[in-house]
Amino acid sequence: CIADSLDDTNDGVNTFFLIYAASLVFFMQAGFAMLCAGSVRLKNLQNSMLKNLLDACGASLGYYTVGFAFAWGGSSPGESTNEGTTFVGTEQFFLMNVEQKAFWLFQFAFAATSATIVAGTLAERCQMLAYLAYSTALTAFVYPVVVHSIWNNTGFLSSFRAEPLLGVGVVDFAGCLVVHTTGGLTALIAAYVLGPRKGRFYTGVDGKRTAKDFPGHSTALKALGVFILWFSWYGFNAGSVYSITAKNHPLLAENAAVNTTLAAAGGTVSALLVKVWLVERRTGETLFSLSDALMGCLSGLVSITGGCAFMESWAAIIVGLLAGVLYLWGTDLMIRFGIDDAVDAIPIHMICGIWGSIAVGLFSNPSYLQLLHPAKQAGLVYGDGNLLACQLIGVLFVCGWVSVLMGPFFAVLHYIGWLRADSLEEIVGLDISYHGGLSVDGGTTDNESSHSED
Amino acid sequence: CIADSLDDTNDGVNTFFLIYAASLVFFMQAGFAMLCAGSVRLKNLQNSMLKNLLDACGASLGYYTVGFAFAWGGSSPGESTNEGTTFVGTEQFFLMNVEQKAFWLFQFAFAATSATIVAGTLAERCQMLAYLAYSTALTAFVYPVVVHSIWNNTGFLSSFRAEPLLGVGVVDFAGCLVVHTTGGLTALIAAYVLGPRKGRFYTGVDGKRTAKDFPGHSTALKALGVFILWFSWYGFNAGSVYSITAKNHPLLAENAAVNTTLAAAGGTVSALLVKVWLVERRTGETLFSLSDALMGCLSGLVSITGGCAFMESWAAIIVGLLAGVLYLWGTDLMIRFGIDDAVDAIPIHMICGIWGSIAVGLFSNPSYLQLLHPAKQAGLVYGDGNLLACQLIGVLFVCGWVSVLMGPFFAVLHYIGWLRADSLEEIVGLDISYHGGLSVDGGTTDNESSHSED
Amino acid sequence: CIADSLDDTNDGVNTFFLIYAASLVFFMQAGFAMLCAGSVRLKNLQNSMLKNLLDACGASLGYYTVGFAFAWGGSSPGESTNEGTTFVGTEQFFLMNVEQKAFWLFQFAFAATSATIVAGTLAERCQMLAYLAYSTALTAFVYPVVVHSIWNNTGFLSSFRAEPLLGVGVVDFAGCLVVHTTGGLTALIAAYVLGPRKGRFYTGVDGKRTAKDFPGHSTALKALGVFILWFSWYGFNAGSVYSITAKNHPLLAENAAVNTTLAAAGGTVSALLVKVWLVERRTGETLFSLSDALMGCLSGLVSITGGCAFMESWAAIIVGLLAGVLYLWGTDLMIRFGIDDAVDAIPIHMICGIWGSIAVGLFSNPSYLQLLHPAKQAGLVYGDGNLLACQLIGVLFVCGWVSVLMGPFFAVLHYIGWLRADSLEEIVGLDISYHGGLSVDGGTTDNESSHSED
Repeated sequence: CIADSLDDTNDGVNTFFLIYAASLVFFMQAGFAMLCAGSVRLKNLQNSMLKNLLDACGASLGYYTVGFAFAWGGSSPGESTNEGTTFVGTEQFFLMNVEQKAFWLFQFAFAATSATIVAGTLAERCQMLAYLAYSTALTAFVYPVVVHSIWNNTGFLSSFRAEPLLGVGVVDFAGCLVVHTTGGLTALIAAYVLGPRKGRFYTGVDGKRTAKDFPGHSTALKALGVFILWFSWYGFNAGSVYSITAKNHPLLAENAAVNTTLAAAGGTVSALLVKVWLVERRTGETLFSLSDALMGCLSGLVSITGGCAFMESWAAIIVGLLAGVLYLWGTDLMIRFGIDDAVDAIPIHMICGIWGSIAVGLFSNPSYLQLLHPAKQAGLVYGDGNLLACQLIGVLFVCGWVSVLMGPFFAVLHYIGWLRADSLEEIVGLDISYHGGLSVDGGTTDNESSHSED
Repeated sequence: CIADSLDDTNDGVNTFFLIYAASLVFFMQAGFAMLCAGSVRLKNLQNSMLKNLLDACGASLGYYTVGFAFAWGGSSPGESTNEGTTFVGTEQFFLMNVEQKAFWLFQFAFAATSATIVAGTLAERCQMLAYLAYSTALTAFVYPVVVHSIWNNTGFLSSFRAEPLLGVGVVDFAGCLVVHTTGGLTALIAAYVLGPRKGRFYTGVDGKRTAKDFPGHSTALKALGVFILWFSWYGFNAGSVYSITAKNHPLLAENAAVNTTLAAAGGTVSALLVKVWLVERRTGETLFSLSDALMGCLSGLVSITGGCAFMESWAAIIVGLLAGVLYLWGTDLMIRFGIDDAVDAIPIHMICGIWGSIAVGLFSNPSYLQLLHPAKQAGLVYGDGNLLACQLIGVLFVCGWVSVLMGPFFAVLHYIGWLRADSLEEIVGLDISYHGGLSVDGGTTDNESSHSED
Repeated sequence: CIADSLDDTNDGVNTFFLIYAASLVFFMQAGFAMLCAGSVRLKNLQNSMLKNLLDACGASLGYYTVGFAFAWGGSSPGESTNEGTTFVGTEQFFLMNVEQKAFWLFQFAFAATSATIVAGTLAERCQMLAYLAYSTALTAFVYPVVVHSIWNNTGFLSSFRAEPLLGVGVVDFAGCLVVHTTGGLTALIAAYVLGPRKGRFYTGVDGKRTAKDFPGHSTALKALGVFILWFSWYGFNAGSVYSITAKNHPLLAENAAVNTTLAAAGGTVSALLVKVWLVERRTGETLFSLSDALMGCLSGLVSITGGCAFMESWAAIIVGLLAGVLYLWGTDLMIRFGIDDAVDAIPIHMICGIWGSIAVGLFSNPSYLQLLHPAKQAGLVYGDGNLLACQLIGVLFVCGWVSVLMGPFFAVLHYIGWLRADSLEEIVGLDISYHGGLSVDGGTTDNESSHSED
């Protein structure tokens, strides 16, 4: 009787925990939207906001119909299994027979995040049709297969299998590889095929490709976006323990939350100070770049996502510090290769996503890992190289899988003319081209009309 | 001993759950404020923000003094009772002897929401005095009586009575009828008496009344408002299960959260695409309206509020899809009847509120309903028409009650000249008229003063 | 066996509760950032946003290294002890051997808040170097000593000691004295040494010092900041009960949340209406000041922080009402003494912080106090003056401690020329001086560059 009551209590607590975490992860959509609102020009603001809204809507419908079934259909998340390997799940389409719907909600919010990452990069020059096509493809098939392979206990890289890869399997606590690398790499492929915004690059006096900064619509909203994302990340990372009443799970959840904080701080500080040093060496001026600090913060958050529950605090700080530097290196690389990323999503999500996935293989403390994962794993600094090898294989798999599918996909979109807005549409801005008029910002007159539909 | 400890645990979890949900519902105030900030013109921004702030303050004082007592005084929420019918509660004024104060907090946040709905509609032309009068009347008496009649177990429409209406009673899980229809209908009555903003309507070349769009102050803040509202809605809907440790309650809460997501997506997609189709048919252009997508999203959220815990996922999508279309039809209707609604609150909260209340009678699955409600109820598609009949009676009651009270109320306000700002005040903007000066937006100079009070 | 399971459940619930509360308190950073974004001029926006971001980062690194160890090292929070008095903790540096990391997270978020309070006041004229120096000093040493003295059970003012001061000790539930008064007083000292912004004060026609209002960048963002802060305050105040499954703790947490609401409403209403009355008496005009309503709201929130869990609702309303008036008096006082506070943090956090700390000694109900504190305490209205005496001693201690350390600290910074931005830097704005360029707000052109680093 008491045992039954306790079961009810635990059921309530765990459902509540997942609803809390899922609602926070959903709130990331607001964070990404404000980041975009702060980064794009006013003439593309409506376009950008609409894509952010549709990410959430498309992911929910995509995950309802097939996405969740492909990713998780028929399995018991977080439990070990002896069953064989499957490529995708084949049950629980249309939310049928899903026992724990709060888990569906949590997973939907993750899928929405992966789609949102791409939208930012392609801002200001991508057709609506292309957007609808790739976001559907990503959330309904490409991303679910990655989830299934790494997180599902019948996935071929899962560490919950009876005989995982190299005896350990891939470890990705909250989706550093699954969500961020997948989203960031898709963004890279798309940005490469799509080409840069008009006027973004020119040849400088030194003969090198130089990037012109496009000032975003609002500095304050960009900062707001980062604060919202940091806040939401507590749900993203701590929530990934799935159930909070199980023994030792609270310990993992709180470790994840603390390390999230420390890595964000590390990323902010290193991106800010290294940039100060670089600019000072070149120009003699001491300039503190808000934008780099904000992006460094996100880089730290992304990079700790994979191992937040399993690392010691000092390791989280190191991971964050390096992420900030990698972000600076990544943005430089994007310019060198002429790839235009409106919100720096490629360095942040792809490069720091890969770094974070590798860091799991370097710094994961076995005493934490064993609280969740059945296999005997340990990071390289604890004397075991197998986990690091698995992480590298995982990175290769994600890069290969995403490239093989999304590369041809965007090439075809481009070939048939569905990808890029035409020249004039881009110059006048997508709001006028696709959304019926320019946004008015702060206007005091009532003589202007933002919507000319009628 | 263990049983006592478990009671303490359950007490802690349920209090925590209600504080979480109440804080999210409170956060809706921020969402509505940003929606207003995005929708009104800069010259009325301070006026709009002040009303949003006062909604929360007024509701808390109104609910502290008499509102909660009228609505819930002396009853045990969510439990069946054999007691007779009462019109209002007569105990627990001034929070005296309220055992579960977290429940008060949750209910206060709902009352604040009902007041906020009205404030948006009347923006840009309503006197401060009128605002203070109607928001007090609404939260202290009109709304509590609706709560008492439908949610309280001694209310005459309650499904928790020993002999409920038609054997089933009215079902309104999270306030589709109680909160949204009440607020939306009050907004309609007020907007009708108040009249449209100057210059809002003119006679077009076809001789028909045409509406001029007043471009709002900020597109980004409007989108932010909708994202915040969607996020907060998880507290609004999932929180309405009141206690999370009771058997089956987690199941209802997670179903509510999932259906909230799906209906929001449905409303967004249908409002966006139907509008695309309508505009294309008329003008040949393909224009994606951000504003309609955002409002469609809110329409979906409102419409699922009543039955979110009791419907299957497919039904939630249908409810949302239809809500998006009803929103478009509603805005058109408002223009046809010359009713000016600054934030589209009437189509969203009243029309979709009524639709959502009826949908409860159509799609509610009895196997879910029986987990919470003692009476044997079922939606029409499950072969029982009594619930639908009750829902229609509930809608009629709310429409009648609100009209009878608020109609004369606004008429009197209008007659004595307290309702509408005078012509000049409206033209220069309410910020100059009532709040001492215009807001400066993004100004870089320091030569201007926004407040000239000193 | 069942007892062990229940322990796991309780562990999960309490960890979850602290993560929830900590994440909300962290979200205050977003609230303060938006408040600053709304209050400063566009030319200092990047500077202001960067400081808000660095507050969180600096506090996390400061609390990781030494801050937490000084404040809490080696003790059991919230439990009584017979151990002697210590000045600071000397264990658990670098998060070593911290059993409950969620508690660290919660405490870090509080430390970040104390630093943020100061940043707002000094906006628009303070060097980056000075900022880095004082925020480190505050979060790593000055603030932790206050925490240790009042909250830690071996602190000399703690009410959890075997023989507390005057038999009762100082009571500060959620940091009215510890967080807000410490931050607010540091802001006062810094603002006094730093001097006002150029052009802020001039001699009016009546020969008195008159303040020129500097219109902030965005009214809507200022309102957003206050809504976010009110929302986050539920985590700040309700979370301060630390564990929610212990007997009677839910009762304290929900009382704290309800009183937070009522005091916020009280502060808003009194600041708004008293200002209306003052302006009307002087000018004959009826002007409702949004800014004063918003600041009054924060004043109410600050003032209830100390006693929210222990007061009756009527007392919370009185505390809030008086806080609103004290805020108005405080801003007037600042102008009279020529102290320039860009965000009114001194009246809000220092003056209302002191008022709230004294109010604990006036209105605390012993039946609530005994649920948490072992000593027999009661507020003056319940017939006992010892608690009030302790509260006054606590206020004196904080004022003395902060003044003795931060006074010379800022004086030295000023003397060596690290404190104030130079005249030209201030006039062109700190964004151009320190951050490489002006923010663009709402610009539709792409011919301007906000960052000229390259």
